[in-house]
Amino acid sequence: MKNALRVRRSENFADWYQEVIREADLAEHSGVRGCMVIKPWGWAIWEKLQERLDRLIKATGHDNCYFPLFIPLELLEKEASHVEGFAKEMAVVTHHRLEMKDGKLVPAAPLESPLIVRPTSETIIGEAMARWIKSYRDLPMKLNQWANVVRWEMRPRLFLRTSEFLWQEGHTAHATREEALEETHTMLGVYRRVVEGDMRIPVIPGAKTPHERFPGADETHTIEAMMQDGRALQAGTSHFLGQNFAHAAGIQFQDKDGTVRHAFTTSWGVSTRLIGALIMTHSDDDGLRLPPRMAPRQVVIVPILRDEAGRDTVIAAAKALAERIAAQRFDGEPIRVQVDLKDDSPANKRWGWIKKGVPLILELGPRDIANESVALTRRDAIGEKQRILPMAEFVTEVPTMLEAFDQALLTQALDYRKAHMVEGIASFADLTAHFGQESGTGFVLGKWSGDPDIEDRLSSIGVTIRCLPHEQSGSEGKCLITGAPATIDAVYAKAY
Amino acid sequence: MKNALRVRRSENFADWYQEVIREADLAEHSGVRGCMVIKPWGWAIWEKLQERLDRLIKATGHDNCYFPLFIPLELLEKEASHVEGFAKEMAVVTHHRLEMKDGKLVPAAPLESPLIVRPTSETIIGEAMARWIKSYRDLPMKLNQWANVVRWEMRPRLFLRTSEFLWQEGHTAHATREEALEETHTMLGVYRRVVEGDMRIPVIPGAKTPHERFPGADETHTIEAMMQDGRALQAGTSHFLGQNFAHAAGIQFQDKDGTVRHAFTTSWGVSTRLIGALIMTHSDDDGLRLPPRMAPRQVVIVPILRDEAGRDTVIAAAKALAERIAAQRFDGEPIRVQVDLKDDSPANKRWGWIKKGVPLILELGPRDIANESVALTRRDAIGEKQRILPMAEFVTEVPTMLEAFDQALLTQALDYRKAHMVEGIASFADLTAHFGQESGTGFVLGKWSGDPDIEDRLSSIGVTIRCLPHEQSGSEGKCLITGAPATIDAVYAKAY
Repeated sequence: MKNALRVRRSENFADWYQEVIREADLAEHSGVRGCMVIKPWGWAIWEKLQERLDRLIKATGHDNCYFPLFIPLELLEKEASHVEGFAKEMAVVTHHRLEMKDGKLVPAAPLESPLIVRPTSETIIGEAMARWIKSYRDLPMKLNQWANVVRWEMRPRLFLRTSEFLWQEGHTAHATREEALEETHTMLGVYRRVVEGDMRIPVIPGAKTPHERFPGADETHTIEAMMQDGRALQAGTSHFLGQNFAHAAGIQFQDKDGTVRHAFTTSWGVSTRLIGALIMTHSDDDGLRLPPRMAPRQVVIVPILRDEAGRDTVIAAAKALAERIAAQRFDGEPIRVQVDLKDDSPANKRWGWIKKGVPLILELGPRDIANESVALTRRDAIGEKQRILPMAEFVTEVPTMLEAFDQALLTQALDYRKAHMVEGIASFADLTAHFGQESGTGFVLGKWSGDPDIEDRLSSIGVTIRCLPHEQSGSEGKCLITGAPATIDAVYAKAY
Repeated sequence: MKNALRVRRSENFADWYQEVIREADLAEHSGVRGCMVIKPWGWAIWEKLQERLDRLIKATGHDNCYFPLFIPLELLEKEASHVEGFAKEMAVVTHHRLEMKDGKLVPAAPLESPLIVRPTSETIIGEAMARWIKSYRDLPMKLNQWANVVRWEMRPRLFLRTSEFLWQEGHTAHATREEALEETHTMLGVYRRVVEGDMRIPVIPGAKTPHERFPGADETHTIEAMMQDGRALQAGTSHFLGQNFAHAAGIQFQDKDGTVRHAFTTSWGVSTRLIGALIMTHSDDDGLRLPPRMAPRQVVIVPILRDEAGRDTVIAAAKALAERIAAQRFDGEPIRVQVDLKDDSPANKRWGWIKKGVPLILELGPRDIANESVALTRRDAIGEKQRILPMAEFVTEVPTMLEAFDQALLTQALDYRKAHMVEGIASFADLTAHFGQESGTGFVLGKWSGDPDIEDRLSSIGVTIRCLPHEQSGSEGKCLITGAPATIDAVYAKAY
């Protein structure tokens, strides 16, 4: 059978990824190096993600707010280890005016001191917290913002690595280490709930090694997902910053006993990168497949309009059917259904929605109306013949079908991951050989001695320790890098 | 009676405005010149506005999407009259790296061609539309984005004029002039519905004169609101761009008859400035007052906790009451209610919520619980004694009370505007004398000849024509600037 896409995953994963995006009309590169345009279908998916995550961020006691796009260099200079990690590629604003000279626009009016476009907002939010927090009564302070950030990218990839990207960044301050650590883990749990529970992307929660930590953090925790080429994608991170940023910014409070102490802070974020993870987890050679909670439309009805005469009847029947479907609920919300009235052939429309990943696609023509039936294409069964179902049955079964589809996506992703979890590699030589393969190398589960100085050796084979899973076996073995005795379980993989 | 704020509106409107913002904890200036921090209470109001407006933008057939923050100079140069209007104050990015030199961060790696941070996105969205639109089948294309934009400000004022501000910008392309004009007016109507219907800010819809138009637009339509110092605030604009941007960007389509034509485009936007309008329309000398649809909390319960013994009983009763209130609905949504458990005195808490503008504030102590009553402060009747109401009555009456409060805010705003609409000014000398007053000069309704060349004379008296109301009387009179015979009704005012 022919597939809807020209490139197969198994042939060229990178090209396939681009084609899924293009054919689902999610996003495209803009004329500005590294910056993308997120098109309506891509944006609608991002909105779904935002809605669900924002609800949980609020439910866990955080307030949304908004901090400036620009950060003065002086603020950045305060946190040396943070700068070290970030100072490489940032957009620097040096002028605040343009002038026309010989028909060309040129920068004019230099700023006294250059500004950078935020790559993340620890420094500017820390500066505000230092002003706002005076007493233990002001703690915990739990803030979040939805914002655009910029980290200059030389080799941009849509959603995965773009110079400008969108995210939420949470920033909190606490009186005690314990409370800040608890917050760090709570938010990782929130991310897991959205990424695994709503986006149906299985993840492994764990700690980052010192090498892979956020610059300036004492601990970084992550959820790591496996893409369909076996590579890892960091799907969300939550940082315990200790008192590092509090010292740099002067975030102090008077405790109950009158002592002035530095606060403990955290930060955590997920970004539009998650759309990339969604694509690379669930799509197939016919295009995108959307878990129902992320789908801007869960059901699309394509009316079959063969002649002008029957046209109005079919459209009226399609709209009536859509209303009945919308009256059903999935996950507590009305089913999102659309009648596709575009000026195009039914086959083009059906394939269009297949490539856009809509879970359930119906066709409805005069014969279906006469028989009170619908022709159903389930997005995970494109190869099969359309099922003809009694209309009334379809309407009542929609929630169950969406549930089954949702479960099927998770199961397939879990199956893929299971099949690409590699255990039993015993030495660095074997590790090197394993990752020497072109693709599908997956996650290697092995031991790590805990020595951060040896991590560098992995870079020669393009591999990193993705995380030290929170669920540790406690067993003894040998470090995959050095062969020394080791007890720490680690996930080794190539990564995005 | 003493008021909650130290400055009265009548004494110093500008200082009073700052104090309302500070005491309601809405926003503050950041360390970055002209950029503000929007704090949680201010942000929650903005979220309410976003929710309501976004729903209407979608209901009128627009798709949300996202375009890059940066715009290449070449794109800007294409639309000469647009550049002329905007090119003055913009943030210019010239480098994409920082380096540490002698312990200081300095810009490194200059860009081949500088980028500007978008002051508005007509140029970059126009460039995309030119690629996306090929045939009449692709039209209308109706896009919207929620984004931050930057226009460098030398004299920033919170919400009203900040270098970075947040807004939505709609951009549409149509096959015909008529359809684009209809879109322009539809969206002005949407703005009016939100600003007048939800924010309770009365507005006058009208056309801008050529002088006051958006750079590059054929027509600009506006809704103009009157603040409590009599000044005008432009609360939303909708632009008919004719074929100007389509010519500059090359937005062309093949029409049904095969002819290739340029599209007609529109753009329209409202911004965080509307929060400033809300403050200056409804606040009084005790602080902010929030129309219920904009209020993050519509009801707040302050428990009176006199001794440790009764503490749990009172808190439990307050929470139970909150649940009963939340089960009621206002405007189709559950009532937003909060029990204030902060560590502070009941009086401080009550005044805190008064200054934050919450419509209904309850106090609930052991005696109230025994009597099954509540003590109510309605935000528009601070001077009066608290009303003691049976608890059950309050619960069922909440929606009615919110409705009455909502109506009262609109009525007061309408009354203020009516009292400051000035008619009967006959000459430029009288106009000059009228606007020579310090404040409260309001809107002068008068005639304008229609000659754009004479508008300049108004700048000497700090006045502009705010709009030519869509509702025209058709009567004859004399132009307020020249004394020449004139039929066009115009609104003259000082403006923000």
